[in-house]
Amino acid sequence: MVWHYARGKVIMLMTPGPVECSPRVLQALARPQIYHYYPGFVSFYEDTLEKLRRVYQTNYDVMIMHGEGVLGLEAAVANVINPGEKVLVCDSGPFGKWFSIYVSNYKGIAREVSVPYDEAMNVELVKEVLDTEHDIKALTAVHCETPTGILNPVDKICREAKKHGVITIVDAVSSLGGVDVRPDEWGIDICICASQKCISAPPGLTMLSISPDAWEAIEHRREPIRNSYLSLLDYREAWRERRFPFTPFTAEIFALNAALEDMLEEGLSNIHERHRIVAEHCRRGLKRIGLSLWPKREEYSSNTVTAFRIPERLDEARIVEKMVEEFGVLIGGGYKETKGKVLRIGHMGYQARITNITATLYALERVLQEL
Amino acid sequence: MVWHYARGKVIMLMTPGPVECSPRVLQALARPQIYHYYPGFVSFYEDTLEKLRRVYQTNYDVMIMHGEGVLGLEAAVANVINPGEKVLVCDSGPFGKWFSIYVSNYKGIAREVSVPYDEAMNVELVKEVLDTEHDIKALTAVHCETPTGILNPVDKICREAKKHGVITIVDAVSSLGGVDVRPDEWGIDICICASQKCISAPPGLTMLSISPDAWEAIEHRREPIRNSYLSLLDYREAWRERRFPFTPFTAEIFALNAALEDMLEEGLSNIHERHRIVAEHCRRGLKRIGLSLWPKREEYSSNTVTAFRIPERLDEARIVEKMVEEFGVLIGGGYKETKGKVLRIGHMGYQARITNITATLYALERVLQEL
Amino acid sequence: MVWHYARGKVIMLMTPGPVECSPRVLQALARPQIYHYYPGFVSFYEDTLEKLRRVYQTNYDVMIMHGEGVLGLEAAVANVINPGEKVLVCDSGPFGKWFSIYVSNYKGIAREVSVPYDEAMNVELVKEVLDTEHDIKALTAVHCETPTGILNPVDKICREAKKHGVITIVDAVSSLGGVDVRPDEWGIDICICASQKCISAPPGLTMLSISPDAWEAIEHRREPIRNSYLSLLDYREAWRERRFPFTPFTAEIFALNAALEDMLEEGLSNIHERHRIVAEHCRRGLKRIGLSLWPKREEYSSNTVTAFRIPERLDEARIVEKMVEEFGVLIGGGYKETKGKVLRIGHMGYQARITNITATLYALERVLQEL
Amino acid sequence: MVWHYARGKVIMLMTPGPVECSPRVLQALARPQIYHYYPGFVSFYEDTLEKLRRVYQTNYDVMIMHGEGVLGLEAAVANVINPGEKVLVCDSGPFGKWFSIYVSNYKGIAREVSVPYDEAMNVELVKEVLDTEHDIKALTAVHCETPTGILNPVDKICREAKKHGVITIVDAVSSLGGVDVRPDEWGIDICICASQKCISAPPGLTMLSISPDAWEAIEHRREPIRNSYLSLLDYREAWRERRFPFTPFTAEIFALNAALEDMLEEGLSNIHERHRIVAEHCRRGLKRIGLSLWPKREEYSSNTVTAFRIPERLDEARIVEKMVEEFGVLIGGGYKETKGKVLRIGHMGYQARITNITATLYALERVLQEL
Repeated sequence: MVWHYARGKVIMLMTPGPVECSPRVLQALARPQIYHYYPGFVSFYEDTLEKLRRVYQTNYDVMIMHGEGVLGLEAAVANVINPGEKVLVCDSGPFGKWFSIYVSNYKGIAREVSVPYDEAMNVELVKEVLDTEHDIKALTAVHCETPTGILNPVDKICREAKKHGVITIVDAVSSLGGVDVRPDEWGIDICICASQKCISAPPGLTMLSISPDAWEAIEHRREPIRNSYLSLLDYREAWRERRFPFTPFTAEIFALNAALEDMLEEGLSNIHERHRIVAEHCRRGLKRIGLSLWPKREEYSSNTVTAFRIPERLDEARIVEKMVEEFGVLIGGGYKETKGKVLRIGHMGYQARITNITATLYALERVLQEL
Repeated sequence: MVWHYARGKVIMLMTPGPVECSPRVLQALARPQIYHYYPGFVSFYEDTLEKLRRVYQTNYDVMIMHGEGVLGLEAAVANVINPGEKVLVCDSGPFGKWFSIYVSNYKGIAREVSVPYDEAMNVELVKEVLDTEHDIKALTAVHCETPTGILNPVDKICREAKKHGVITIVDAVSSLGGVDVRPDEWGIDICICASQKCISAPPGLTMLSISPDAWEAIEHRREPIRNSYLSLLDYREAWRERRFPFTPFTAEIFALNAALEDMLEEGLSNIHERHRIVAEHCRRGLKRIGLSLWPKREEYSSNTVTAFRIPERLDEARIVEKMVEEFGVLIGGGYKETKGKVLRIGHMGYQARITNITATLYALERVLQEL
Repeated sequence: MVWHYARGKVIMLMTPGPVECSPRVLQALARPQIYHYYPGFVSFYEDTLEKLRRVYQTNYDVMIMHGEGVLGLEAAVANVINPGEKVLVCDSGPFGKWFSIYVSNYKGIAREVSVPYDEAMNVELVKEVLDTEHDIKALTAVHCETPTGILNPVDKICREAKKHGVITIVDAVSSLGGVDVRPDEWGIDICICASQKCISAPPGLTMLSISPDAWEAIEHRREPIRNSYLSLLDYREAWRERRFPFTPFTAEIFALNAALEDMLEEGLSNIHERHRIVAEHCRRGLKRIGLSLWPKREEYSSNTVTAFRIPERLDEARIVEKMVEEFGVLIGGGYKETKGKVLRIGHMGYQARITNITATLYALERVLQEL
Repeated sequence: MVWHYARGKVIMLMTPGPVECSPRVLQALARPQIYHYYPGFVSFYEDTLEKLRRVYQTNYDVMIMHGEGVLGLEAAVANVINPGEKVLVCDSGPFGKWFSIYVSNYKGIAREVSVPYDEAMNVELVKEVLDTEHDIKALTAVHCETPTGILNPVDKICREAKKHGVITIVDAVSSLGGVDVRPDEWGIDICICASQKCISAPPGLTMLSISPDAWEAIEHRREPIRNSYLSLLDYREAWRERRFPFTPFTAEIFALNAALEDMLEEGLSNIHERHRIVAEHCRRGLKRIGLSLWPKREEYSSNTVTAFRIPERLDEARIVEKMVEEFGVLIGGGYKETKGKVLRIGHMGYQARITNITATLYALERVLQEL
């Protein structure tokens, strides 16, 4: 039997980001434009930062950069590293490895510590390098590797690094807001997030928490980055006088504030519990259908995205297309090293609902049967 | 008599950007999120680029960068200039001079040609430098100096530069879409625009047209900028395969497309005529009230923003506040070198309506009388 | 195990109306107000009527009344019946019986033909009355009885009635737009629909198709209803000169037009097929869980709403609340005669998606297990 | 000189209703649909009623009927009057006179007291009739006659009527929310308002305050109106159990709540002062242009709408069209008896801004000069 009932219209967005926005967020986007220095907006921005700090569970400075998540990642490396300095890059997957490029771009030396991409980062390996190589300035790690759905033990990694006086930079883009992240306790000096994943605002903003240690490194860079879209100091200096280095993205800030409001109303621990329930439901369902999860051990899994292996002889694109065509459910394919090997179901932020997962599993099972 | 009828609520946004968005644009912002690689969005993005090209009146490549206007300006300089190269910077005002900072940041040598900030750029001066200094790689100029409301003859300047084989970079952020700009005819190699001015979309996007000459310089930079938020090549390469270097700002693209649709429906020549009528009405009205325009000669004036001198003994902030408090009309103060000297009325894009100007002049006149 | 993951937030609206609106419809609602006689709105209204006619599959006049569905039902009776006239009321459920009240209000005589509420209307019974009682002026029937989920054979009933010269009034509020309805072929003189069911616009408008026979009855009523909110003649007369009897509901008309656009884009036969697939999926799923459908025979079932019997010893309110609390899925309880006996799942218009039903069945099964 | 700069696009809606909605109201409209019995909506509705009561400045019951303003007017008459009863109809203009039709429809006897339409209702005349004719059951009056811009002394009229035990019905559709209205102090038994005028929500709802005296008359009508779209008792009875007689207009209720929130934030006395300032500015401006106001004496003028005589030899439609075509400002023509004689500028609710009036007067003056 052929359904074709959805006729290719995406009704349920189950890609691992961007995710659907709540109605409150969509409505906030449509608010009329405002002049950013008119007092009302400045205090609204302050309120947004304060909400952000609560979602970040941090006492450090939090900052909103006006660009996609990659801007935050690049800026973290660019503002901290001096040419010639060594950076321990936790290569736990495509995004972990990506940091090496930024390090090289800014003329640092990337020292990669690698694990197979179906495993979580190995804390012992990291510890070994930290213990033996004493010229490491900074460490980069990815909390949730979106392409593989693996959650790395950044708490242990960063605590270890801080013992060695290393600046830690963590990509928490697809974890913060879905699972517990604690920059201060864990020793994350720069923790980077983006609007379009667990926060469930549209793409357009990247957020960072910055520790005093990180600020010191940034200020004492040989040539501090200033007057640039990548400069963290520009933002800080401007904001001290409640100014912006350029026109902020008013609509995106409206949306971010609304999305954070949604989160604080629900409560962080409730959100984390919801993600746990939904993720377990997803993994259990996939196994019931007879699919194998990508992570070697289930405990590596992130509660924000699940990657599973594509059954032999089946084509990634065919499955994705058929799920949209017939059921209106869009899931994600692999990315870089996992391209062609896995499919991914996002369950982060607004899309992390048991009802969505149930529907997705149903559609997936039917499509696999037909193929 | 004291009005206080507006009670500080901004009802009419007459700052020289960001400007109000049309209802169509506001509604477009509230469209639900979409996955950017799902075919529907890719063709929507293509359509947006095609509309953009028509508004740009160019056959060159047009590109949307996902950041504020300053990202486009910085990227233009960063991608073109090699360390040690000389750049002729047309210093016609605060924004013209600003290019020198980017040139220095990227280790070029800024060769400024300056005029008093109440005059338009002097083409003869520029020509003289171009004729005598043969090591000039690029030239930067601002079309409309937003802080002064002066329109520079970038057509003559760029044509002259091109005769000397110089790459021309023009900031048309507050002119393109309000007055005639013709990159190809005028010899503008990189023409930069932003979403929140005459285009009347929210802040968040910067647009560039890039000539073949510019691409050649970019490709042949000693170290081409790659894998960076500032890279123009990343965008081009990704888009050739209809991909994006990172998640594009879906909501802002929805809004931009709607804003461009508004513009193409009205017709560019109609838009330019509207701006001309409105600007003349504004200048005539200010003179009638007894105020003096900032530009030394009225023919220097841009049809997108009008700056006028603050009457003696009156305070900038007082006038602005009182106009909001009592009439709900928000105009702009000075900026950098013109701070404390001028007030500015924006009349660009959606706000360029004779009714708005009439109301603004009325409010201004009353407030000046009271003070 | 207790989920509590939805915490009482309705995420999936599965009540049998009002139903969720598509994003296009929600955005249309937010369009700025317009003056209704400014030509743009009049032609937009014409366009809305033309789309409505296509969705109605009729060549008769179609009309939009500015009120909830009950206004259309009351108006149909009020405008047609004269005091003392007999009306055959097909009492197939709470809504079918409801017509008797309108008939009495307007001093007609209601002649009810009743069936048990778990059966569809009996055509033979109706025929018998029509054959034997020759003073019947009009007949009323409900196509889909929303409280029971039963679809009545209004095609056969109305064809029969028309043979006897009887004016037929059909409540198609929860069927038209989800299942096939053909006023002209079937002999429906007044076919009433409402915005908030299969059309998937917000509540606020009721629509009618009116045959020439109906118009004749309306015009020749002893005291034609005029200058009243209930008058059909007021609307017709005003609209002939492209006027309205009062200010039309602009926002609701914007939304209705968008909803009809959604429908015509999908295509009526595709929509009907989608409803068929989804409804079968729902009924099959309920039976798999071990629940019994309310209709005595499955062929009585409407493809727009399914009612099933509440398992013994379980409480209606408890089930509904628990489904919301834990899964965010809101289904409907019984209504009038079916109150406390059935629960109802809406699958009409925008909510008729297989993914929604799958999620709803999942939530229902879990909740029943727990209770 | 010909402007044609607006090209027929309405930019400023200055008709005397419907008026523009604030951004908050427009955004509220786009909220997703909700099931009306789910507790969240019931308490939201309660909150809306409570806000409404504060805007009404009454301790009486307030009620929202789901229809245009005329539904409220018709319902007031229909529910109160018995066939054969006499109603004093204050015929102060087209809307005042309109009540006679409702009275006749419901078989009452309309006793009109008339004044020329450029004068306010004469309290002495009303008093005379009340003193001499003792069989008067009810009195109807219009507070602001929208077609003429005249405000009638309904405070004095109703106080007088109450002394005679007469039920008073007042159409405050285009006054309440713009000028002071006090149902309890003034003796208004049923005070009717509509969403799309001074409240500045979209058309779709009509609101009523109902005194105990009015309820008594309604309950003791010989045949109380029940089970009808016109029934006030249906609403009251349903709401006592926090139910609705039919599906309420969720989107319109969202909008109404937001509009009332806007009003309460500004404060009623501030709103009234704003209307006074704006109306005086409008009248002064019209006289300066050389136009004559319609009301015989300026003190008759309502602060919500101003009607002025069309200069001789000029055509109403020409002026209206030209103002839209060239300036984007839409004003209203005459209505019924004032058709072809007056033009009207609305300044009620959200449109009552001095900036709007200034712009409107500017456009009007230019157009009159050209013609």
